Amino acid sequence: MADQPSPADLAALRARIDGIDSNIEELILERARFARQVGQAKGDLAAAVDYYRPEREAQVLRRVIDRNAGPLSDEVLVRLFREIMSACLAQQEPLKVGYLGPEGTFSQQAVHKHFGHSVRGLPLASIEEVFQEVDAGHADFGVVPVENSGQGTIQSTLDMFLTSPLAICGEVELRVHQHLLSRTGRIEDIERVYSHPLSLAQCRGWLRQHLPNAERIPVSSNAEAARRARNADDAAAIAGESAGMVYQLKSIAGSIEDRDDNTTRFLVIGRSLFPPSGNDRTSLLVFIHDRPGALYGILEPLARHGISMNRIESRPSHSRLWEYAFFIDVSGHRDESPLKDALAEINSTAGDVRVLGSYPVAVL
Amino acid sequence: MADQPSPADLAALRARIDGIDSNIEELILERARFARQVGQAKGDLAAAVDYYRPEREAQVLRRVIDRNAGPLSDEVLVRLFREIMSACLAQQEPLKVGYLGPEGTFSQQAVHKHFGHSVRGLPLASIEEVFQEVDAGHADFGVVPVENSGQGTIQSTLDMFLTSPLAICGEVELRVHQHLLSRTGRIEDIERVYSHPLSLAQCRGWLRQHLPNAERIPVSSNAEAARRARNADDAAAIAGESAGMVYQLKSIAGSIEDRDDNTTRFLVIGRSLFPPSGNDRTSLLVFIHDRPGALYGILEPLARHGISMNRIESRPSHSRLWEYAFFIDVSGHRDESPLKDALAEINSTAGDVRVLGSYPVAVL
Repeated sequence: MADQPSPADLAALRARIDGIDSNIEELILERARFARQVGQAKGDLAAAVDYYRPEREAQVLRRVIDRNAGPLSDEVLVRLFREIMSACLAQQEPLKVGYLGPEGTFSQQAVHKHFGHSVRGLPLASIEEVFQEVDAGHADFGVVPVENSGQGTIQSTLDMFLTSPLAICGEVELRVHQHLLSRTGRIEDIERVYSHPLSLAQCRGWLRQHLPNAERIPVSSNAEAARRARNADDAAAIAGESAGMVYQLKSIAGSIEDRDDNTTRFLVIGRSLFPPSGNDRTSLLVFIHDRPGALYGILEPLARHGISMNRIESRPSHSRLWEYAFFIDVSGHRDESPLKDALAEINSTAGDVRVLGSYPVAVL
Repeated sequence: MADQPSPADLAALRARIDGIDSNIEELILERARFARQVGQAKGDLAAAVDYYRPEREAQVLRRVIDRNAGPLSDEVLVRLFREIMSACLAQQEPLKVGYLGPEGTFSQQAVHKHFGHSVRGLPLASIEEVFQEVDAGHADFGVVPVENSGQGTIQSTLDMFLTSPLAICGEVELRVHQHLLSRTGRIEDIERVYSHPLSLAQCRGWLRQHLPNAERIPVSSNAEAARRARNADDAAAIAGESAGMVYQLKSIAGSIEDRDDNTTRFLVIGRSLFPPSGNDRTSLLVFIHDRPGALYGILEPLARHGISMNRIESRPSHSRLWEYAFFIDVSGHRDESPLKDALAEINSTAGDVRVLGSYPVAVL
């Protein structure tokens, strides 16, 4: 405790912080003036959508991470810089971003995580409507959920691309945290832990360390687990924070998942494709007639060019011409080798390949 | 269009912005290191609650506004600085803030507006529970709605102070925007506008300018207005954005209220009172026996000391000892003259006056 600052030191520290704040403010305003000049390159009345450049934002954020010497985390710094960019971009007409409402959903959180708070969010009633409003130009972009780690792909979102002309302009990953909840809020009371088998598996390490002797009881959902935990002092549930509120349980511990990749993935949809950012992903929609041979004709060039495939999902195509549709995510940008070369080869063969989008890999 | 930047200019502008970003980042990290030293004044394991200083935050934000030379608005800059302070404060254990859940409510927005996003929000099932959790120390602060412009005071929140020992540590004002919504989304179709009389009054100027010939039809609520607007192409409703989603209406125009003081006011509740910030408000709870004479005994000293009163509300006191309870908001801080002197006088007379809190007037 010897090196604690005295009240005089405290006053000096606060004065230093005030000086820093003044410099930060000056720089943010200078940044806003330069951003305004960039906007003017697109005409005096340019709306934000005219000069929003997702690939440039991704590059800025990656540099923020590269430079970070601490003590703040990359996540916090990236969030601050997203807000600064969002504010600079919104000086004229802000971006309009449609999402699956109502306000307060994870989709709204994803909008703010990706675009910052200086956007106009449009809560919409369905994923279909998000596509429609972007297509009609009422929204500049849309944000739609596409994948839950644990629950897998949201097929209805992917299926929208079978008929929609929209492009994928970005991806957002939102972490979902697990909590240990109980009636008393005291870990020493707990003899049984209820949860969905996937959630129990996600928190195995934490449970082994903190509740080695408690019985683990798999149930159909985390909400059901919370409902059961409500009935006894010695029972706990692993569930999201909001389940604790609904069932009036106290949180014993938060963020107890062993890996922080318990995420929901969203796609940003828009009307145009953007240039490379240096670390991109490309989503392809491939229609083929006859599954085994034709699919090989697509996958072989990708493999030969050393392109890694992150995902493949087959879907009925809803079209008479083609029997099967495949959604394939690969690394790289369609305008850059080696993906550009592989796509050229694929297009010269039988398959019908549509590039849904080439977009920056989510920055945190 | 002559002074539009060329592509080379654009690249130069972006390089300048990158340089600015690097400086901003360095300064934010330096600020975080100094903030950490301030925290150490309270001990090595200090949680954020131990060195959170609302009066200091208010002063920092007022300086941000004083220095603002544009082009960003005060509101945007204040938001950015709240986030920077929030991130610096949360380096050890972040603030835990209870609010009326679920996630996505206006209360949650108020939490983030006041404390930034680097806090742990605890969604709770009722306003009573917010008070309980703060009182029990499970939450450091709570945020509860107390007033809707238009609908008036939320009596149940005020009544909590009749029995709770908690103090008011701050106030948050959240703007609520009105939208003109219709089935077609085209203003030229509109012949009739439905809304609650208060909302019609709030948007009178906008309606006069943009829809001078449309009939204004008062209905019982804005939701009812949205429901009616759904049934005809020539009808519109004035309502919040979320009503548009529920009733599948399109927004013709947003933020159409004539004055931007259409707000909901929240109180920040905590376990301690804080020093003056230089621009404070004090909330008093006054119990008296006999209304006319005793109330005068309270109000006269306040008036004589030149203290402006922002609000007075009478409530049944729920106590046998006192017949009436009054909630009175006045300008100033209880530790500073002239309020300090006035309070000393009042306490020496018959009334029973409790200072619920002296706290910074909401900064934007």
